[in-house]
Order: sequence, then structure tokens, then C-alpha cells
Amino acid sequence: MVKTHDKPWGGRFNEPTDREVEAFTSSLHYDRRLSRYDIEGSIAHARMLAKQGIISRGESRAIVGGLRRILEDIEGGNFSFHANDEDIHMAIEKALTGLIGETGGKLHTARSRNDQIALDIRLYLRDEIGRVMRLVAALKSGFLDLAKKECGVILPGYTHLQKAQPVLLSHYLLAFWEMLDRDEARLQDCLKRVNVMPLGSAALAGTSLPIDRHYVARLLHFPAVTENSMDSVSDRDFVAEFVFGASLVMMHLSRFCEDLVLWSSDEFGYVEIADAFTTGSSIMPQKKNPDVAELIRGKTGRVYGHLVALLTILKGLPMTYNRDLQEDKEPLFDTVDTLQACLRVLTAMIGHLSFKRARMEAGAAGGFSTATDVAEYLVMKRVPFREAHGIVGKLVDFCIRKKKTLSALTLTELRKFYPGFEKDLFDRLTVRQSVNARSVTGGTAEETVRKRIREIEGG
Amino acid sequence: MVKTHDKPWGGRFNEPTDREVEAFTSSLHYDRRLSRYDIEGSIAHARMLAKQGIISRGESRAIVGGLRRILEDIEGGNFSFHANDEDIHMAIEKALTGLIGETGGKLHTARSRNDQIALDIRLYLRDEIGRVMRLVAALKSGFLDLAKKECGVILPGYTHLQKAQPVLLSHYLLAFWEMLDRDEARLQDCLKRVNVMPLGSAALAGTSLPIDRHYVARLLHFPAVTENSMDSVSDRDFVAEFVFGASLVMMHLSRFCEDLVLWSSDEFGYVEIADAFTTGSSIMPQKKNPDVAELIRGKTGRVYGHLVALLTILKGLPMTYNRDLQEDKEPLFDTVDTLQACLRVLTAMIGHLSFKRARMEAGAAGGFSTATDVAEYLVMKRVPFREAHGIVGKLVDFCIRKKKTLSALTLTELRKFYPGFEKDLFDRLTVRQSVNARSVTGGTAEETVRKRIREIEGG
Amino acid sequence: MVKTHDKPWGGRFNEPTDREVEAFTSSLHYDRRLSRYDIEGSIAHARMLAKQGIISRGESRAIVGGLRRILEDIEGGNFSFHANDEDIHMAIEKALTGLIGETGGKLHTARSRNDQIALDIRLYLRDEIGRVMRLVAALKSGFLDLAKKECGVILPGYTHLQKAQPVLLSHYLLAFWEMLDRDEARLQDCLKRVNVMPLGSAALAGTSLPIDRHYVARLLHFPAVTENSMDSVSDRDFVAEFVFGASLVMMHLSRFCEDLVLWSSDEFGYVEIADAFTTGSSIMPQKKNPDVAELIRGKTGRVYGHLVALLTILKGLPMTYNRDLQEDKEPLFDTVDTLQACLRVLTAMIGHLSFKRARMEAGAAGGFSTATDVAEYLVMKRVPFREAHGIVGKLVDFCIRKKKTLSALTLTELRKFYPGFEKDLFDRLTVRQSVNARSVTGGTAEETVRKRIREIEGG
Amino acid sequence: MVKTHDKPWGGRFNEPTDREVEAFTSSLHYDRRLSRYDIEGSIAHARMLAKQGIISRGESRAIVGGLRRILEDIEGGNFSFHANDEDIHMAIEKALTGLIGETGGKLHTARSRNDQIALDIRLYLRDEIGRVMRLVAALKSGFLDLAKKECGVILPGYTHLQKAQPVLLSHYLLAFWEMLDRDEARLQDCLKRVNVMPLGSAALAGTSLPIDRHYVARLLHFPAVTENSMDSVSDRDFVAEFVFGASLVMMHLSRFCEDLVLWSSDEFGYVEIADAFTTGSSIMPQKKNPDVAELIRGKTGRVYGHLVALLTILKGLPMTYNRDLQEDKEPLFDTVDTLQACLRVLTAMIGHLSFKRARMEAGAAGGFSTATDVAEYLVMKRVPFREAHGIVGKLVDFCIRKKKTLSALTLTELRKFYPGFEKDLFDRLTVRQSVNARSVTGGTAEETVRKRIREIEGG
Repeated sequence: MVKTHDKPWGGRFNEPTDREVEAFTSSLHYDRRLSRYDIEGSIAHARMLAKQGIISRGESRAIVGGLRRILEDIEGGNFSFHANDEDIHMAIEKALTGLIGETGGKLHTARSRNDQIALDIRLYLRDEIGRVMRLVAALKSGFLDLAKKECGVILPGYTHLQKAQPVLLSHYLLAFWEMLDRDEARLQDCLKRVNVMPLGSAALAGTSLPIDRHYVARLLHFPAVTENSMDSVSDRDFVAEFVFGASLVMMHLSRFCEDLVLWSSDEFGYVEIADAFTTGSSIMPQKKNPDVAELIRGKTGRVYGHLVALLTILKGLPMTYNRDLQEDKEPLFDTVDTLQACLRVLTAMIGHLSFKRARMEAGAAGGFSTATDVAEYLVMKRVPFREAHGIVGKLVDFCIRKKKTLSALTLTELRKFYPGFEKDLFDRLTVRQSVNARSVTGGTAEETVRKRIREIEGG
Repeated sequence: MVKTHDKPWGGRFNEPTDREVEAFTSSLHYDRRLSRYDIEGSIAHARMLAKQGIISRGESRAIVGGLRRILEDIEGGNFSFHANDEDIHMAIEKALTGLIGETGGKLHTARSRNDQIALDIRLYLRDEIGRVMRLVAALKSGFLDLAKKECGVILPGYTHLQKAQPVLLSHYLLAFWEMLDRDEARLQDCLKRVNVMPLGSAALAGTSLPIDRHYVARLLHFPAVTENSMDSVSDRDFVAEFVFGASLVMMHLSRFCEDLVLWSSDEFGYVEIADAFTTGSSIMPQKKNPDVAELIRGKTGRVYGHLVALLTILKGLPMTYNRDLQEDKEPLFDTVDTLQACLRVLTAMIGHLSFKRARMEAGAAGGFSTATDVAEYLVMKRVPFREAHGIVGKLVDFCIRKKKTLSALTLTELRKFYPGFEKDLFDRLTVRQSVNARSVTGGTAEETVRKRIREIEGG
Repeated sequence: MVKTHDKPWGGRFNEPTDREVEAFTSSLHYDRRLSRYDIEGSIAHARMLAKQGIISRGESRAIVGGLRRILEDIEGGNFSFHANDEDIHMAIEKALTGLIGETGGKLHTARSRNDQIALDIRLYLRDEIGRVMRLVAALKSGFLDLAKKECGVILPGYTHLQKAQPVLLSHYLLAFWEMLDRDEARLQDCLKRVNVMPLGSAALAGTSLPIDRHYVARLLHFPAVTENSMDSVSDRDFVAEFVFGASLVMMHLSRFCEDLVLWSSDEFGYVEIADAFTTGSSIMPQKKNPDVAELIRGKTGRVYGHLVALLTILKGLPMTYNRDLQEDKEPLFDTVDTLQACLRVLTAMIGHLSFKRARMEAGAAGGFSTATDVAEYLVMKRVPFREAHGIVGKLVDFCIRKKKTLSALTLTELRKFYPGFEKDLFDRLTVRQSVNARSVTGGTAEETVRKRIREIEGG
Repeated sequence: MVKTHDKPWGGRFNEPTDREVEAFTSSLHYDRRLSRYDIEGSIAHARMLAKQGIISRGESRAIVGGLRRILEDIEGGNFSFHANDEDIHMAIEKALTGLIGETGGKLHTARSRNDQIALDIRLYLRDEIGRVMRLVAALKSGFLDLAKKECGVILPGYTHLQKAQPVLLSHYLLAFWEMLDRDEARLQDCLKRVNVMPLGSAALAGTSLPIDRHYVARLLHFPAVTENSMDSVSDRDFVAEFVFGASLVMMHLSRFCEDLVLWSSDEFGYVEIADAFTTGSSIMPQKKNPDVAELIRGKTGRVYGHLVALLTILKGLPMTYNRDLQEDKEPLFDTVDTLQACLRVLTAMIGHLSFKRARMEAGAAGGFSTATDVAEYLVMKRVPFREAHGIVGKLVDFCIRKKKTLSALTLTELRKFYPGFEKDLFDRLTVRQSVNARSVTGGTAEETVRKRIREIEGG
């Protein structure tokens, strides 16, 4: 049993804390990850306290020096955390008092753990969002490089997993560039709301001590301070918003991974993932499994789960801080880890894909993939689209029954369906002609795709 | 059984669609809500087709005129939807052909239902986000007005639902202003990503017809067009992002409603909701239930559920369009309806609250709510905070045992705990002094709160 | 504005209900679906009140007669619901009083809407679970019939979407029979907890009137009554449990539909879904899309969302009834509708699949699918499994480099990898031999699968 | 870089696995928790292989002996796991081969990691469900003991957090007994579906080796074996079902904790939680926070999140095993840990609650809590319930305006509202009379509650 008189809040307590309760309520085993940010925040706080004359310069120097040594110890692996230290704030403060004596007890002046943890999470998340954004940018580059490298390769485009129309593989790859570009923008927007300084809100009401919150904000490179202390200590919107942003990134990755899994199958056979990025079977020696892609797809569920956890926790909480909020950290930390690991490994993996170009192009030719081109040909002949669509439908049906392709039909055969067909139709029936005809903005024509690549590179 | 030859895609089908399948796949019973947007988009499309010479001016005029009549009929309630029309696009196109003949069949030239529905949802959501933002702004005004009206009223501030420190009721109310302000910013950010024009992406690859996507964008007031056709037809990020933004708004409302429910209880007794906003019991005649607040709290779960539905649907979909995406609309529509109804009714309700000022202020005085002020007093006497905290803890413990309040202690009694206590301490022990001492930025002092109100009104 | 004096709870209210509040709190537009159950429950309640002498036999007869007429009117479409009737209970009671006069006001004796709605939902759900179970049973039969019809057909079995080992198509189909069989058991378990009679719990505390709850239970065919009135009016466990059970059914359907989508692709080409169960494309005349399968897959997300909504609503509610609980009905109703529609349409659809047997069997032969058989052959020769696995791995590698299949290797070639290979190895290398060798319980050998079919039919 | 030739599946791989991929795909850091079950399963498997003559008795003895030593080492903390061992199966098999040589390589005969992990999870979960059920039973006992101890204490019963009718505190406590009793039944039902033996399903198709699955089942105390190998290796229903069951337990705990938080507030003041189960504030020395209750409430969100993660992962997976399934374990393990910790700490805590009986009883008297009794009195005088309700509503309204309680009214005053009131009415107006009048089954009368306690103890 731990004496409550050793606790920061032990003054009026007569009974020691139950050991199981201690373990149950402790957050030290996970919030130690915040130590660097907790210390950075404390250093800024101590410097401000001295600037404002609340503590002396000497006390501030002692505190800052002590904190720096503790950080060094922690980062060097030479710090021992004690299970009964409750949380990272207490662990560090206790170590500080151990190092510099009673002056350590002045650090917590004019703040509470409620605003301190709000600061720590914001500092942490600001850094991690930066890291995530760099990883997203790297993956975007990866897709761009691949799009450049594969430019000209033709892929069957699918809707409903049915071959629809031929497209460029590069066009497909750049679709993921667009998704990730939106993800980046969303993270950037989220960052604005993370990057606000809450310290000085104290427990919930602010403090009567003459602190300078803007000074702390400057020291820690925050462009603004929060404007309502009650809101500040209970706001976790930015955590939920980040985890939502992460969910969409993961969703996008899951879509690419789904295609990778499909394309790695024997039946599609469009891509081979390098051995270094696959694993085998313990019982079937011939297998080469796209495990990395499957795991990323699966981990999407994990991040979704964290989002639900956070939203559930926040719903219906009375003002202001409630201990339920302690449960925000593990979902957040695991989201950061999962997302970064997935981005990293996927970026590495897409550099190790070999696309089976011939097979893709052959695939694109099947399934009447240029039927739409015939319909568009008819439209340019002033046939109303609906009628054109019907004519082509009958043509396709005829081909299926005769086991022929569209380009194998003779003009005579064609004219049974529409007398106005001319020889120039045959210029529309190859897969490459079909692709290159779609030169509208956002379309799949090679010139359009190359133009988009240049725009991206320029921008 | 419906003949598939009547279907827009019936050309090559030999068997009619099963009636149950028809009902199962139809979206008309809910997507008719998009009719106005579908028609607006089609009008812009028809005008562009004419401008580009793909159809004639006359054809365009006939199409536009027909569409306008259909819109009038729909809005006037004079349009009959047929169950076997599959979706709103087909219902309208069929009616158009009924009205203007074969020319109607030219409208679908150079587009697909895949890009058409993407356009419709974007037009719809752009409008609805605007409406939501106006409602959020109205609720913000409501909180601001209330904060002005109640300025000076003291409320016990809570953490862990334990009385912590006295605050101004206005400070509390402005905390919700801040939350809603962030919500507004998030919706604004979302709107940027909604407000991009997808038409011209056709089924997935763009079109070979010489269309002008930027012209359509101008006609429909979109600042930009989408840059990748494959992405455009399968992107529902903006739907999920909006529903997430709605989830956070609802979460904030649920927190206020939780407090309203608490405060309406006999035990708290801080607020009375006007009869017009409560309901009674069928068995207990004395009851006056805060049903509206409870329902809003409950409806938060409903919106969370829609978010999960959308994220689940999107995960792991192969490129590009898959029919699963049809399931995006009902969760979206219900989110819009639920959110707008909750905002509207809550805005009305907060104008009908009577706060029980005396009871709040009395409540704020209990529970040693100025203990922190004593600790801060000691800090200004250079007592290290941790030691100050301990001294006050013992004081509180003493008071509880003696059944006294802090302000009822004599200087002699006080000095047993810390000899340096002076008479000026008694200036710190009233609830109002405690509130007004917290004049730090974001704090609860009346001058600070009034300053914030002026800033908000100025900004 | 509606006078509150017309409300069942209007006695002490001085202000009329706000019209918007009225609409916001009303549940009539969806709970009218419960009318049949509400009336059944009321009839049993009235009969019990008479049996206990709380009302007279004559009053009871009048009430029961009136209720039956109302039910007839409702089911015949001749009942008009008024928007300001709040909920189904009030709508019916008001109609009753309209029909039989003041005696109608005696029906609500000894009950509250809190226990009344609990009863209605239980009656409703008991019926609907029965209906769902019959639909699950029908789908199981569908899979069984298909398994019998296709018995002998060989399919490549996949792990990681890589061909792993050949299996019987029937074995695959029976895997879904097993999943659905567990679903049925789960629904049966859920039903036990639905099938308990809550009426008589009144608002929360029971009643002082001398009612007989067991008599009501008998009239309504409930095997038991609830044992705690406070629990009874706030328990929605059974709703969440049903929606969870529905989520697992949907998940199983989504897995089958995923395979249907894959198998319908040109690349797999294992199945053709009848035209009546597919739809076409408005722009690509050659398409035949597995929309039904995609929609079922998508609707899984919808049901998951409802589960999350319910769990969110229930979390952290104080005892006992809170209005949040009103939000249980729409997710429940939509889950019932969605689940039943999906089961119905899928059962119909699996009767309209044509499996491409030759293509499946050819597919099964590729990809070294009998490699495991070689390893097992070696094990029977006492080669440790790990070593056997390594030998076969090298054999496969050799085949890939030489572009040969395993069965095309000569004994001489084979013996380079393991000298103990004998001619009997060649009996292990065909796909059918591989399948039929797996005759362990639960295995894919034809005799084993046929035995399982007989067991199912017998049991 | 790790040579793939050291991998169990390395035979045909020419490139080593990327180190990052290695870390990304490894599950050893969490699945080592399954070591005891993996070894138990392997011992049974080895004994069966020997019984069937697939390996020799001596080999089996060597394997079993080696496995037992490894288990001892692991449980004694003397086993070193290597990061590149992929998973627990490989770590143990490698250690075994290290200990007993090449014979170790025979253990994996006739099984795959796909069926092995299915077995491990089932063995693990069977044990943990047993543990959870014992903890649920202990908490039920805790509520029962408390109900016995507090029998006779009166509590205001709430609906909509408004005082509704007086109830016994014991009745309230037993409501949680009922909830937990259902939870226990649900876990028991889940256990039936966990307790089925999957080994022998091998990778997906069963094995050609002459194994005896029923023998393995008997050795491991499974009442049945799974009946379809494809289903067996991809079934995780039982994991989802357990996590759902855990979600409902957590939801119930969250409801009790919500009330504990409310009742610990100064405003309610119904309960004091012992110091050992609360914590204090780092800045407000007078605070005593119900942290344990808040954390349990918060952790409910965490378990919900895990449920969503699992359902998301399972949706739409093609048959059979896919690597996504590896993501089932962390949510499952954390659910087990969280649930058990919450049950344990709550059971301990409810033994340390002091209920403030006088305050509860005083609270029950307020708010016209016996108004329903007056209505029921009128009903017994043959006044139709609706009319009775109206009369009492007016009485309450009159009392509020006159600032009187119901029992303070004179008969003359009362008769202005209903002339038939008699003196016997006053026997209905005390809180205790009101409670004891509700003696219907499931009601709150003291005799009824005591009877229920006896039933529970008897049953």
C-alpha cells in the first residue's frame, strides 16, 4: 500500500490508495512516451514563472537544469520509472525534487495536470502530424515516380470489378496521389487546431497568479493561445480529428492494398511483389503471399476502432475535465504508430513491384472494353446517346453469340446494326486509341496524364 | 417483371430483372431528394454540350426547358415517381423524353451515372453544409447572447463532477461558443473538398467527346474541377469528412445536454427549461422531463453510427466505382436531417432556460471551492506550490472534521497550519473574489469574460 | 401550437409545447410499425385488469372490441395517424377513447409507456427473429442444395487470395452453411433473452394495483416475466444483442458476396449470375455488374453502424428510463428490414448461379496446388515435415525456372531433390487425387463432403 | 536482413525479407501470450501423431518433453524470444529443434499455422471466458451482499434523471444483478461456440495424413470438432461474439459508474467512496474524485472500439485465411485485460461504499414522488386512469404554487380536486408506504425484494 501522503494530492486523505486501484488508474506505462514534451513544456513554464517574478531566476535555472538532465537520462535509457508514480508528470516532478530539492516543488505553480496534459498531447501530436505528413508526401512521391516510370502502360479499368474501359496504369496510380493529396490537406487543417497553447488554463478556471501565457506560447512556437480555460482542459476534438484523418489515410491505403492483393493473384497476374515484401506458407511451399498488403488492409479496422473509442469516450461528458479523458492516449498513440508503420512499409513496397505489362494490356483488350468508344462514335454522328447505347448493346450481344470481338466484325456486319458506320470506326476500336481519345481534363489519355505529372512536379 | 429492354442498360440482356432485385437495388425512394441538384447539373451539362457543338442550340433549349418543367412539377408535388425507375437520374431522364421526345436521349451524352451522382451529392452537400454552418452560427449567437445576459452570475465549476472552483456562468457558456467555433472551421475546411466539380469523369476514364469541364464548373459555381477521373467516380471522402464533422458537433451538443439534464435535476436545480421544451410523464403527473436534451444526447449515437457505416463501406473497395457506394446516401441524408434538427431545436431551447442564479451561487460557495486560492496565496508568499498544496489539504481536512468552512476559520486557527497567514487572506476567500482573481487570458474573471465577449462581437 | 392539456401528461403544464419540439420528440412516424404489437399487448393487459377486478368485464370487452377495430383499420389502411399524437401508444389510446368513450381512459391503468414500449419491442422482435431464422434456414437450404448439385466439382481453394490447394466447390459452399448454422444458434440464444415479459414494471417501480403479470405472460405466450422493474424499463440489451447477431450474419453474407464479385470477374470467370440478378451500365453496354452482391456487401456497413449507434446510446445512461432510449427503434427497424431483404434476395440469387466448372477445375490445376501432397507423401516416407517442406520448395522453384508443372517432372528429375521418390508419387499429383486424399473429418474429400451432407439432412 | 532460407516457408524464395517488413508482419510481441496454449495444443497433437503411427512413440516423447521444458522456461521467465521469430509458433518450434534436434521438425506434420492459431485462440479464450465468468459472478455476489446489507434503505428512483418514485436501494442494486446475470448467460452461450476443436483443418482443406481429430479433442477437453476445414481456418465469429459480450458487460458497468459519479457529487451526496478508491487533485486540495468509476466508464469506449475493429476486419474477406486475421489478437487481448481489470476493481470498490441513507430517504420524499400513488388510489375508486392522472396533475400544480407538499394538504383542499378523497388517502402518501405498496412481482416493495434475494440465494 502506498501512503497517500506521498501523493501530490494526499493532503486530506486518511486512507492509503488500494494497490489495485493504483495500477488501474496509473497511466505511466503509456504516457511516458510524452516525457520529452512534458519536459519541454515544463522548461517553458519555469522560464515564464521566473520572467514574471513568481519564482526567482535561480530557481528557474535549477529547475531547467534538472529537467534537462532528466530528459537526457530518459532518452539515454538511464531513468527508472516507478510503477506508483501515477503518471509522467509526477514521475518527472519527483525526479526533479530528488535532483534539486524543494525548489522542484515550485514547478507546478500556476498549472494543473489538466492543462499540462493538454499541452503535452498538443506538442506530441504537432510533431507526429509533421512526421505523418512527411510520410504521406513520400508515398505521394512514390506513386508519382511509379506513374512516370510506367507511363504508357495500359491497364483494364474496372467498375464493379468488371472490366469497363482501358486506362493508363499511370492514371490509376495518380488516383492514389490525389487521395493522398487530400489526406495531406486534411492533416494540415487538423494541425491548425492542434497548434494552440492551452497552458495557464490550470484546473479549469485559469489562475490568479500573474502568468504570461503568450510568452509560453512563443517559447514553444505556438501561434495562438486557447481562449477559454474550461474548454481548454476538456477539449480533445483535435485528437479525434487526427484519428479521423488517419482513418481516411488508412482507408485509401486499404483500397490500394485490395487491388494489390487482387493483382497478385494468379487470375489477375498484373503484379509481382518482390520476395522481400511477401512471405510464404508453412505448409504450402509454392505460395507467395501479399501479407503486407493484407495487414495494412486489416489495420484499417484497428484505426477505425480507435476513432470509435474516442468518440464514445467524449460523448455526453459533463464539463469540464473527467478522468474518462485519460483513455484518449492509448488509441492516439497506437493510431500514430500504426499509420506511420503502414505508410513507411507501403512506400518501400511500391518501389518493389513489377507490373506485368503485357498481361495488363492483353486484359484491357478483352471484355468489349471499347464498346463505349463505338457509342461515342455514334454520338458524333448525331445519334442520340440512348439510341447509340442500345445499338452497341445489340452489337455486343451479337459478338458474344458469334464469339467475335468488336474489331473482328466486318463493315457489312456492322451496318446491319447501324447503316451509318464508316471505315473510320476501325480507328476507334483499339485499346490504345480508346485511351488516348480520353484527353479531357482528368481523363486517361497519355498526353493528359503526362500534363498532370508535369503540373504536380511544377506545383 | 420489368423488361430489361426498357432499362438504360438493357441492350444485351436477355432476361428481365427479378422484381425483388429491382426493389433491392433501387435508390429512388431516397435519392429523389437529390432531384433539384440532378436537374441543375443536367441543365449545366446540356448548355455545355450545346456550346461545344455536341448537341444543337435548339436541342439544348428543349432539354433545359423540359428539365425546368420537371423541377417545377417535382417541387410542386405534381411529379409521379415510378418504383421501377431505379434512381433519380433515370426517373428524370425518362420524364424528359416523355416531354420532349427523342432529344431527351441526348442529355446523357458524355457522362455516366458514376460522375453524375458524384456531382449531385457535391451540389447537395455544398448547400446543406451552408445551411448547417448558418445553424451553427445561430447557436453560437445564442450562447453569446446568453453569456451577455447572465454575465456576473456565478456557477460552481466542476471537474470529475466534483465542485472544483467557482466560475462565471458566462465563462461556461462561452466554452460552448469555442467548441462550435471549431466546428464551424472544420465544416469550412470540409467544404473546400466538397466544392470541386467531378462531371466529365464519365464512367471512370473521362470521355472522348470534346466537352468543356471548366465551363460546367463555372455555370455551377465550382472553383475547380477534379483532376483524375478514376478518383472522381469513387471518391466519397468528403461525405465521410462531413459526417465526422457532424459527429463532433453532436458530441459538443451532447455535452451541453448532459449538463442540462444534470442541472434540471432536483438535486442540482440550476436551470428550469420552459414547459414548451419539456414533456411530462404518462404515469407521474409531477414530472417535467428534459426530453429534448436527452434526445439530442441519444441522437449523437445515431450520427456516430452513420460515420461507422460510411467508413466500413469504403474500406478495401477495389478501384473504381462499386455499387457498395450507393449505400452512402441514406447515412448522409439522415446525418444532415438529424444535425439540422438538433441545432434548430437546441437554439430555440437555450432561449427558454431560466437559470437559478441564487442556487448556483450558493452551490459555488460549498465544497471548499476557494481552497486553490489559499494555495495560490501561499505561493505568492514564496511557499513552494507542493508545500502550499499540502498545507491547504490539511486545512480542508480540519474544516471537514470541525464542520467549518474556510472563511469561518480564525486567523489563530489558520496560523496553526502556516504561521505566515495574514488578514489579507480573507480577501481571497469569497467566491466572487476567487472568480475575479482569474484574470489570465482565457480565465474566468468577469473583466476577462467581458473582454472575450467584445472580441467575439468585434471579430 | 398544441395545448398540453390534451396531452396524457398535461395536467400541471401551463405552456403549450413548441411545435418544433413536438416534431422533434415524436416517434409516431416510425413506431406506428409497432401498432399490431401495441394492440396485442393492450388486449392482454385489459383482459388481466378485468380478471383482477380492476376494471369490469364489460369495460374490458369494450376496450378489447375497440382495439380490435383499430387494428383492423390500421391493417386495412383506414386509420389516420395525427402528427401530434407523439407516439403509437397515444395514437391508439386516443382512437380508442374516440370509439368507446371514457372507458378508453381505463386502459392505461397500472402501466406506463416505459413498460409498454418494452413489451411492444419484445413482441415485435420475437416475431421478427422468428422470421429472420426462417430466412437463415432457407439460405442454409439453398447452400445445401447447391452443394448437392455441384458435388464433385473442383475449385481452387485460396488463402491470401493465392491458390493454395484444390477443394470441392461443395466443400466451399458448406462452409457458408456452417457459418449460417452458428448464426441461427446465436439468434436462438438471443431469443431466450427477448422472450421475457416486462409489463407491470410500470414507470420504474412496479405498481400498487393488484395486477397479475404471469397471466399477461401466459396470454402473450411468454415463458417468464422480468424480475426487476427498474431493470425492465431500461433494458435494451436484447436489441443490441439482436443487432450484433445481425451484424455477424451480414458479415458472413459479405464474405460470400466478395467471392461472388471476384468470381464474376473476367479474370476469375468461375460463375455467371443470371441476368435477372445483375444490372448493366448506362454508358458501357457490354457490362454485367454483380450489383446485388455489392449492395449486400455495402449494407453490412449499415448494420454495423446501427450496432455502434445502439451501444453508444446505452453507454453511461443513469438509471432508469431516459429518453435517449427512444433512439433504439430506428436502428432496430432498419436492421430487421436490411437483414431480411439481404437474406431473401441472396437466397433467390444463389438459385440462379451457373458455375463454370471446367474453368474452376483448370484453375485448380495451376499454381502448384498439389505441392502439399508431395510434402505429405514425404512425411509418410518418414521425412520430417520441415525437411519435406524444404524439398518441395526447391522442386517448385525448379519447376518455375524450367516452366514445368510438378506432374511433368520425370522420376530422374525428382530424385535429384529426394532420392526416395517412387512411381507411386504420380498417384498424388492430380487435383482430384489431392482432393480425395483429404478425407479427415471436416476435410474436402468427396466421400467426406457427401457424408457431411447426409448428416445435415439427417439432423 | 534475415535469410529467407531460415524461414519455415523459405524454400522457393530468392530474396531475403526486408527488415522493416519483418517487424511489420511479426506478431511475436503480442502472441507470445498464447505460448501456454500453443504448447498444450502441440503436446496433444504430438501424442495423436504417435498414436496414429505418423511419428514414433519415441519421437512423440522427445517432442512432449521438449515442449514441457520450453513451457517451464517461458513461465519461469527464462526463455528468450527473438524478434525475427515471426510468431509464437515459430519461436517454440525453433526452440524445440534446438533442444531435441531434427525430430522437432516433425511436430508441424499434418497441421498448418492456420489451424494451429485457431486452436490457440480457442484454448486461450475458453480459459479467459471462464475467468471473466467467475469475475462476473463475484460482482453479482457483491451487489447481492450490498442489497442484503442495505435492505430497507429508501432511494429516490429516477427517470430522465428526475425523481420519479421512491424505491428501495436494494431494488436498485439488484437491477445490476439482473444485468450481470444476463451477461453471464451470454458468455455461457458464447463459450459453446468457442469450445469446438479446429486442429486438423490444416491450411484450409484438411490433410491426407491419417490423423485422429477426435482424439486431439478429447485430450484437450473439447466436446466437439469443427465440421468444415475452410470455415475452421477463417472463422473468428467467436472472437467478435466474446468482444460483444464484453461490450455489454462494460456498458452495464458504465451505467453503474455513471450513477456512482452522480451520487458522489456534492449535489446528490448519496454515497461516499472510500479514500482507497478515489484520488485527489494536484491543484485543488479539497477534491476527492471518483476516478475509478470515471475510468471504467471511459474504458467502455475502448472495448466498443475493439468490437468495431474486429467487425471491420472480418467484413468482405474472401475465403479462406487472409493475413488481415492476424489483427484479431490485440483487440481481443486488450478486451480481456480491460474487462477483467474493471470487474476486479469494481467488485473491490463496491465493498467500500458508504451510502448516505438519511439523505437518500430525504431525497425520496421531495418532488411529489408519491403522486402516482394518489392516481392509483383514484383508480381503485374507479376513476379512469387518464382522469385520475389529470386530477393529480392539477393537485401537483396547486402544491407548487402554494409551496406545499401533497401530504400537507387538508382533506378540504383535496376534495376541491376530487370530492371522493377519504382519510385513507393519507396512508398512501409516505414514501415508505409508497414503496411497500409496489409488491407486484419485480416491484420494489421490501417483501418483494427480500423474496427475490431469497430466490437468488436459493437458485
